[in-house]
Amino acid sequence: MDIVEFFQQSAGKWFSQRTSHHLAFKQSESGKSDIVIEMMAKDDPAVVQLCQQYEVDPALALCGARVTWNGTMEWDEEKHTGSTVLVPIADPDKPNEGKLLRDQGYAEKASVAGRYVVGEDQALTLITEYETMYSEERLWFASPNLRLRTSILKRFGGFSMASFCSEIRMGVTQAADTQASSSASSATSAS
Amino acid sequence: MDIVEFFQQSAGKWFSQRTSHHLAFKQSESGKSDIVIEMMAKDDPAVVQLCQQYEVDPALALCGARVTWNGTMEWDEEKHTGSTVLVPIADPDKPNEGKLLRDQGYAEKASVAGRYVVGEDQALTLITEYETMYSEERLWFASPNLRLRTSILKRFGGFSMASFCSEIRMGVTQAADTQASSSASSATSAS
Repeated sequence: MDIVEFFQQSAGKWFSQRTSHHLAFKQSESGKSDIVIEMMAKDDPAVVQLCQQYEVDPALALCGARVTWNGTMEWDEEKHTGSTVLVPIADPDKPNEGKLLRDQGYAEKASVAGRYVVGEDQALTLITEYETMYSEERLWFASPNLRLRTSILKRFGGFSMASFCSEIRMGVTQAADTQASSSASSATSAS
Repeated sequence: MDIVEFFQQSAGKWFSQRTSHHLAFKQSESGKSDIVIEMMAKDDPAVVQLCQQYEVDPALALCGARVTWNGTMEWDEEKHTGSTVLVPIADPDKPNEGKLLRDQGYAEKASVAGRYVVGEDQALTLITEYETMYSEERLWFASPNLRLRTSILKRFGGFSMASFCSEIRMGVTQAADTQASSSASSATSAS
């Protein structure tokens, strides 16, 4: 699997259960979210614009994906909604690694490029270094309809949070995705 | 890292925060546990006895480890306490893979041998097939003092549960383990 295939397999609508373990407090916080992931053409104006923002030749964009989320976390009353565009740019000499451009960081609102690596175990690792924070996320498919994510956050040099998401496919946005089922309940019967 | 080094790095006392996502119910359940992991000599009577129980030559045991836990889960009032002995037996032709003998399964009380694989990414994967259940667990160290675990459970062919544990080292049982810190709070400042 390469990064484009990983995004293609991620396309669709997902129900995501999230748990964050706050390590210093020894407390956990749960949340739920609907997530929609849509593939974008390489020449989509938003993809081209993001490349230009990072001063990267848009011809190097492998693909684009728009991720939209809408959820709640336990400890606050705020709605967690947002949307971001992701564009992977492969390293010239390492096809399974590269930069991941995004127009909004997950953890901070500033634009920031991360590093991605697709491992031999088909898992996608994303590393993002912010000014005062380091985030390492691992995403993998237990089945076409069950996607798992872990992430660890370091602030000021120490680990502050470990998080886990289990994501069940609720539907597909791509007609070509014949592997995916259109019903949420099928996720638990997918092998 | 090989399986023995993984166990050595695991030796000590850990505070474990666990979250289980029940996929069909879309509900999560949290728990907390103290875990103690102790290395055992290859010729420890309990190691030899476990090998004999599985009809494996005790000379093939790479090491032994005793895992003891004491915790609570949210949805029941029971104390979750127990202890098991683990003994890895490497495949003759694949040094980083093999059988993991244990005298009590985590998910069912019957004795059952699992498969282990130590990946190039230093993560330990444990696969256990019970009669009506399949469990796949991944363990890795974010730092010497922060161990993470995910597991997925399949029952009757469908995924039923995805779990995540973050484990903070509370102390060491091995004097030789100089990398590890003896205070819990240092886990969050370990890099």
